[in-house]
Amino acid sequence: MKPLTSIDRLSLNQATTEKWSVREAVEGCARAGIPAIGLWRHKVEEQGLKESARIVREAGVSVSSLCRGGMFPAESAEERRRRIDDNRRAIDEAAELGTDVLVLVCGGLPNNDLDAARKMVAEGIAEVAPYAAERGVNLGIEPLHPMFAADRSVIVTLEHANDIAIEIGAENVGVVIDVYHVWWDPNVYREIERAKGRILGFHVNDWIVPAPDMLRGRGMMGDGLIELRRLRHAVDVAGYTGPIEVEIFNDEIWSKPGDEVLKLMKERYLEHV
Amino acid sequence: MKPLTSIDRLSLNQATTEKWSVREAVEGCARAGIPAIGLWRHKVEEQGLKESARIVREAGVSVSSLCRGGMFPAESAEERRRRIDDNRRAIDEAAELGTDVLVLVCGGLPNNDLDAARKMVAEGIAEVAPYAAERGVNLGIEPLHPMFAADRSVIVTLEHANDIAIEIGAENVGVVIDVYHVWWDPNVYREIERAKGRILGFHVNDWIVPAPDMLRGRGMMGDGLIELRRLRHAVDVAGYTGPIEVEIFNDEIWSKPGDEVLKLMKERYLEHV
Repeated sequence: MKPLTSIDRLSLNQATTEKWSVREAVEGCARAGIPAIGLWRHKVEEQGLKESARIVREAGVSVSSLCRGGMFPAESAEERRRRIDDNRRAIDEAAELGTDVLVLVCGGLPNNDLDAARKMVAEGIAEVAPYAAERGVNLGIEPLHPMFAADRSVIVTLEHANDIAIEIGAENVGVVIDVYHVWWDPNVYREIERAKGRILGFHVNDWIVPAPDMLRGRGMMGDGLIELRRLRHAVDVAGYTGPIEVEIFNDEIWSKPGDEVLKLMKERYLEHV
Repeated sequence: MKPLTSIDRLSLNQATTEKWSVREAVEGCARAGIPAIGLWRHKVEEQGLKESARIVREAGVSVSSLCRGGMFPAESAEERRRRIDDNRRAIDEAAELGTDVLVLVCGGLPNNDLDAARKMVAEGIAEVAPYAAERGVNLGIEPLHPMFAADRSVIVTLEHANDIAIEIGAENVGVVIDVYHVWWDPNVYREIERAKGRILGFHVNDWIVPAPDMLRGRGMMGDGLIELRRLRHAVDVAGYTGPIEVEIFNDEIWSKPGDEVLKLMKERYLEHV
């Protein structure tokens, strides 16, 4: 398992520099020589969609993905409909921003019926997939860590994400693999292999102990216990050659100057990923 | 899926009444008509082992399990040896307390080699199993929630716990199923069925949103999103007829008077489990 020798595939997921606007994050990437960025919809909204699209285009920074669509399960049919509509808007935004990947955080439990919620997810993705295909957008099902099953995503294993992608059977539905969410899984290497041809994104960070927070407790690569290089190698072997996003939710990292975070991130990427 | 009609199978895991000593918890159970208790080693040590054994015997409260053995992975061979010895002591204590179940919390990652840590767990259990068998003690592998993979248990799915139990192949090695740790798993019902004949314990509580804390954020049955009755039914169908322990780590519950907690626990058990 060889280290990466350049930052050609590196992408800043803008959640890592939470305090930066789209403009600041894109300019930061350009200064640091980071070729790509993963954008978030609330940040794009703050900056303005057309303005954001122009900023990335003019900076020559490519958009590796847009976060996030999903959030399909809801109690009422009306609310589910609203969420499907919102996914269509997210697809339009992804197309406008020039990225071909919309990351799906599938949504949590509206009540205690887990099977029903999971069915709503599969149905929701199947429903928006043709719309996305027409716009050249791929939908990446990102299994989240099981600790988010209740409130963020009932899809919590790569096996399950693969199952849903296979069941839907659309060319433009695949999976996004974030090490933080899947590293603990005894079946992860089998499932990465099984995801071959369907991997739409790979996110890195680390699991630190003790975790300072459930949501904002991720670490910089190398500060934790995840076998980053082994996982990256497995994803490589499965044929994924696309961007590798660094996505870290962490108050301490957010409090540092963005340029410093990008510098550290580049070093750690080459050292640990 | 019918509700339970009595508290015949109810057991207080003493972690639920953290502020009570062994004596207080056993007397609380006796007052409340709760027929069994799950004890913790640090509490037994505070009370004294022989004294604890006498207290439960005299109160006519049976000991459903002792928590916990395990914690097998360690960096050095010497430390691993110390932990094996500690498991032997835990087995002796279980026998002395008159319970036939020692719950194993298998241990976290000493470094970033997850496979090696998992191997240490399987080897550790295999090594102590004959010692336990001679003393009439069964070893219950409790898969923990994946959020504890780094610091508490590298065994995080029931599938994996089943695999290890099957691989070891000893009559006295099985699994303990705690709803909090397994409820999110898309394979949980398949694996409960597969655990048939090997289920050594069933623990109930709930997953509340938002979780106030990773470790001490469990809820009382009915306050969260876990399909408790469905899981209990599946465990029943898999042939488990033993005690159902209520195990809740939660600061708010710990701050309430124990008798009140036991009263609520009985009501919620009949209503939701």
